[in-house]
Parts: sequence; C-alpha cells; structure tokens
Amino acid sequence: MGKLAVTAKYELQKYSTEVKNNGLLGIADALVAHTHEILMSNQIDIREAERSGMSEGLIDRLTLSADRIASMAEGLQQVASLPDPIGEILDRIDRPNGLRIIKKRVPIGVIGIFYESRPNVTADAFALCFKSGNAVILKGGSDAIHSNLAITNTIRDALSAYHLNPDVVQLIESTDRETATAFMKMDQYVDLLIPRGGAGLIQAVLRNSTIPVIETGTGNCHIYVDEYADMEKAIPIIINSKTQRIGVCNACESLVVHRKIMERFLPRLDTALKEKHVEVHGDVASAAILQDCIPATEEDFGREYLDLKLSIKTVDTIEEAIAHINQYNTKHSEAIITENKENAEKFLNEIDAACVYVNAATRFTDGFMFGFGAEIGISTQKIHARGPMGLKELTSYKYTIYGNGQTRD
Amino acid sequence: MGKLAVTAKYELQKYSTEVKNNGLLGIADALVAHTHEILMSNQIDIREAERSGMSEGLIDRLTLSADRIASMAEGLQQVASLPDPIGEILDRIDRPNGLRIIKKRVPIGVIGIFYESRPNVTADAFALCFKSGNAVILKGGSDAIHSNLAITNTIRDALSAYHLNPDVVQLIESTDRETATAFMKMDQYVDLLIPRGGAGLIQAVLRNSTIPVIETGTGNCHIYVDEYADMEKAIPIIINSKTQRIGVCNACESLVVHRKIMERFLPRLDTALKEKHVEVHGDVASAAILQDCIPATEEDFGREYLDLKLSIKTVDTIEEAIAHINQYNTKHSEAIITENKENAEKFLNEIDAACVYVNAATRFTDGFMFGFGAEIGISTQKIHARGPMGLKELTSYKYTIYGNGQTRD
Repeated sequence: MGKLAVTAKYELQKYSTEVKNNGLLGIADALVAHTHEILMSNQIDIREAERSGMSEGLIDRLTLSADRIASMAEGLQQVASLPDPIGEILDRIDRPNGLRIIKKRVPIGVIGIFYESRPNVTADAFALCFKSGNAVILKGGSDAIHSNLAITNTIRDALSAYHLNPDVVQLIESTDRETATAFMKMDQYVDLLIPRGGAGLIQAVLRNSTIPVIETGTGNCHIYVDEYADMEKAIPIIINSKTQRIGVCNACESLVVHRKIMERFLPRLDTALKEKHVEVHGDVASAAILQDCIPATEEDFGREYLDLKLSIKTVDTIEEAIAHINQYNTKHSEAIITENKENAEKFLNEIDAACVYVNAATRFTDGFMFGFGAEIGISTQKIHARGPMGLKELTSYKYTIYGNGQTRD
Repeated sequence: MGKLAVTAKYELQKYSTEVKNNGLLGIADALVAHTHEILMSNQIDIREAERSGMSEGLIDRLTLSADRIASMAEGLQQVASLPDPIGEILDRIDRPNGLRIIKKRVPIGVIGIFYESRPNVTADAFALCFKSGNAVILKGGSDAIHSNLAITNTIRDALSAYHLNPDVVQLIESTDRETATAFMKMDQYVDLLIPRGGAGLIQAVLRNSTIPVIETGTGNCHIYVDEYADMEKAIPIIINSKTQRIGVCNACESLVVHRKIMERFLPRLDTALKEKHVEVHGDVASAAILQDCIPATEEDFGREYLDLKLSIKTVDTIEEAIAHINQYNTKHSEAIITENKENAEKFLNEIDAACVYVNAATRFTDGFMFGFGAEIGISTQKIHARGPMGLKELTSYKYTIYGNGQTRD
C-alpha cells in the first residue's frame, strides 16, 4: 500500500486543478448514486455495534442515512469550489550571483489518517488530501469498517471511471493492532500522520510513530473573566462556549475569575449555568459564593470534561490567570473577557495557545468559522501547523532555483 | 531542566528585540574575553580524543583556537544584526460576524538540539534559538563535553550579567545513552528536537523521540545531464558540486546522464574528474566509455559517499532520470543541466526534493547562500520546514482574535 501510494502521489501531483475538481464532483455524484449500497454496509456495522452493546450516542455517530450521505457529497462539492493551494509562489529571492530562488507551495506527498467511528471522515479526509495533491492512506476504526470500505470503494471506482489513479486513496482493511502499529512505522512511504479521535488514539500514535505526527483535538479551553469584564458579554460567551455543543474540543472546560469581580459576577453566572444544568467544580473562594458547588481538585483543572461540567479558579491578578492557564491548558483555545485593552494585549501575547480570543466564544476555533472552507483537524502542537488546518496546512514547499552556470567559491 | 526551560521560554518571549540583540553582542564579547578558559577546557577534550585514538580529521573538527572563538563571536554578532522574526503579522482575516483574526509569528517554545563533535555549534545554535525567542536544551557529543560546558557557562554567565534568565540555554552534562533517550521523551517540556550530525544520530532520534523531530542533513544529491545540456556549464558545475567540499550534505554524489549526449560528454568529464582524483562507479553503458571505471552496483546509487567518489547512471529519457532520482535521493538537492526550458520545468516540478536547480551547483543549498544570514540545518522532510532553516523556520504562529461578544449559533 505504501508503494502504491508513492506511485499515486507522483501522478496526482501532475493533475491540473480542473481535473481534480471534476474528479471531486464526479465522486460526489457517485456517493449519492450508491446510497443504497453504502447504507447496506453501514447496517452491518450498526448490527454488530448493537450486538456488542455500544452506547446509543456512539451508534448515532456511526449511523449513516441518505441525508448524511448527501451531506458528504456536498462536502466534496465544497472542497471542489475552494482555491487550489498548489503552485502558489510564496517567495522570490534574487541573489547577487544571479541565482533566482523561487519558493513554491507543493503537496506533502502521502498522508496517513487514523480516525474513529464516524464514517463521513472517510470522504472528508480524502477530499482535502486529494485537492491539496496528497495521496492518502486511511485507517478507520473497526466499528465502521464496512461503511468505510463501501465509501472508499465508491470513491476508487469513480476515480477509475475518470481515468484517475484510484490509489490516491486506500483504506487499510485489517483492523488489528499489529497492522496499526506497522502503519505508524511506514516512514519510508508516508510523510505525515494525522490522528483524529480521542486522547487514547492520539497518544498511541505519538508514542509509536516514526512518521511525523500532527497532534490534534485535545482542548482544555479556559475563559478568563478579568476584573474589567463586561458581564453582559461574559455570561453569553461562557454559556455558549460551555453548552452550545459539549463533546467538542473547542468547548470551554474551565473558568478563571478575578477576585475583584467575583462577588458581583459569580451569582449571576451561577443562575445562568443552573438553567443549562452545568455542574460546577469551584475552588475555595468561588465555592463560598456559588450554590451547590462541588469542591474543585487539582485534577479538575487539568480535565477536558466534554460534558456539562465546568471548573472555576479564582485569581488575584491577570499574571496569576495567565500562569494558571499556561500550566493546565492543552494549547488549543483560550479567551479573556475584558474592556481593558492593556490586559487584552497582555493575555493575547502571553497565553500559549493556537487561538487566543478577546470577548468571543472559544467555539470559533474551526476551519469553517475561520473561513478556510474545510478542516482536517485542529493542531495543538507548534510544528508545521497550529490551530484549524485547512487545505494550505496540508502542503509543504520547495525551492526551485534558476541558474546559468553558477558554482560555489 | 525541562521545567527550567519552560519558565525561561515565557520570560524570553517578553524580551524586546533590543534586549535580545544587546544580549547577543554582550555574549560575543564574553566569549572572546574567556578565550583562555575555553581553550583550556578544549585541551582536555583533545587530550582525551588523542588518548582514545580519534582520527586527525575528527580531532581537527573538535579543536578550537583563538581564531575559531573569534568566529563564533562574529556569528553571534551576525545573528544580532538579522531582523527579528517574532511578532510579524502573517495574515489578517475579517469575518462576517465581526471577528478579526490576526495570524502572528511566535516562537516555538523549547527546542532540543542533538549534535556531534563540533563545539562551535553550542554558540551557533544558542544564538539562533535565542534570537527567535526559543529556549534551548543542548545535548552535544561526549567528545566535546568540556568545550561545550565552557562555552555554555560563558554564555550563561553573560546572560546573568545582563539580568537575563540564563536557563534560556542549558547543556545536558551527562553523556550516557540513557540520558539521551530520556531527553527524547521529554515531550511535556520540549516542543521540537533537531538532530545535527551523521545518519546514525538522526535515525536514533527519529526512532526514539516522542517529540516532533526535524530530520536534517542527509544528502544523496544528483546532477542530471540532459540531452540538451551545455557542456561548458555541465563540467564546472559537476566538478564544483563534487569536489569543492566533499564531506557536506549538499555535495553531488551521483550523475544521471542522457544516452544521447553520453558519447560526446563522458570522455570530457572523465578527464576533468581524473584531474580531481574522483573515483567513478558507472553503470554498464557509461563504464564502456569511461576509463578505469568501477562497475556501479545498486547500492552505489543509494550511497552518500561524502568522499571523492561519484556514481553514474545513464538513461534514455528525462522521465527515466526523474524516476531514478526520486527513487534514490534523500529529498535534499538535485540539479538538471539543460538549455531546454520545457525539460527544465518538468524536472523542477517533478523532482521531489527541498531544492531543485537548473544549471547551477547543488552546493548552494545553504542558509547563507540563500540569504537567510544563518542556518540551524537543512531539513530533508516536508513537515514544518524544508531546505535551509534560518530564523523564520524556528518559529510557529498563533491566531489572536478580537471580538465584541460573539457567540456561535
């Protein structure tokens, strides 16, 4: 599979933007045309999941429908409509010896993607890699193997029908752990691994991979309510960041509150949180003000609840807030609520995270919300890409250098 | 050390450009002022190396002199004179909901550097990391431990004298393998590892590290002599790329020659190579033309000789040349010699390497030659940075987002 992917990547790199876009549109049609077959395969996965006692929530993530397949197809059409990042000139350098150096955007090559039960990732990840000129090897979860295979085969057949190399997308069929580990060591063929899923999956890939990895998705996001916060902004932002969707990486998990505002602010916040059934884990100072507050432990501050739970830490200074957040956060998304410009700038500069907000919800950390049109994940590391990763973040660059006989002294 | 580096990185990120530059200039003076002590420590390493039977070439790399220390100091002054990359605005995005997203260049954080016997890397690597706002943990070779310690201590003392946090640079004193392996697993504190040295060191770091690694330095570089080559350009470029310095990663190790030009070209080349005492390993077709040519094996084409040796492969088409190079190269630097523009563009587009040249020596792949003013290494992978890495390549970015109460629907 590695060798086939390498051959496919060189062919894919020669496809024009038009060829790639027509391919994506054709595949979108094919997915809709094969709705029945894909749903049949999905039924096999669902029956197996029910038999093994999977929770309803997870079965819902696994379940496809004609509508969900139509959305997958729309996703492909959307990626087709995005500008092609490949070939963009990033820099030109003219050297005194007459060498002209051009820095150009190029595909990365072969990308490996690990993902868990959502079968729609199969089509999404393919589309982003294909448009950015990268061959992709997919390794989905065993729960969704029949669905993933049906989607991959539909895409591959459509590619062949367009006389395109079907090996630009391959799915690893084996679902055992040995195969997964072997995949992580295929550095000879694969240029980048992106794990998409829970912390367990991401840690396993980070520990075992000899291929460069982009760490995505873990978000222990904070909102700091400064002493100069406008409470009319603070409360809707906190409620939105905590409760609009609870299972996502850009949801707020912890509040940091300045002591000078806590007596006025916390009772109002408490009412709003109770309306949304949020369970609060507060430190000593906040627990004295809040009703029915669970005492926060050290562990609470480090937790990504992904649930209707929120920890609260109180601080005497903005410096203490920044130090607390830099200690416990996962470098994802952090916000300050303040009307004080100096404090806002201090927070923006000193917080170590991909996305730092002033007076806005942390939920905006998302490729679509940033206007990238699509997203393969949200990077929480600092190498290569940080924050939402769209098409450009799936590219590398090369230098092409024009000479007329230059040699080095 | 990891914790100290993290504390130091947050302080370092607050230093202004002026503070950083004054620090670098002060350290340059301190290195010169402490020449005697540094040379005394270097003598200990040299005596130890002589005792253990180290080769003269390696002892030369290890040996410092007043001149070499003065060059180190000059290196620091040069880095001080380069523009500060930190804080640069890379993009501004205004969203329909009023969010203003600003993408800003920031330091990576803590960088770990593994290197082998050259003690001057201690000062060079520190300077580049410091100027780009990164704390650095250095792990040099055991051969140079006394020299590296003397240089590091001089730098740390000078930092303290300037009221700067000395922990922005730390040297790991222990030289055993367990410490090295433990360092590679410090992903909680270290954001990036850069190994500088031979293939053995680089592979060990790639295999064992749980920290993102930038692979540097291996260069099996090719020059392709196209059927439309100008021989007046080809011969000086080949001789320069092969012989101007043989132990470097951007030296040419292999020629690919079009069969249509080989009868005219190879005899002339042969004469030029013999003058420089280059040993040629040719395939069957080239060996029939060259004098005293050693038959090339499959292994020759994959070898980075770092010696006065050159392999030659003949091809019938440019496509065959490109396929051969993409199979055997290390994605470093490749060149085509041709007067045909179409072939030049085809080669530039289809060769998979950091730097692809038309009619110029591969020896130009170098941060100084590219005008970056300095270089920490040459990346041969596609993630984060490719080719020569200067100050900008030691940075990441963050998004700072300005709102006025935005929440997500």
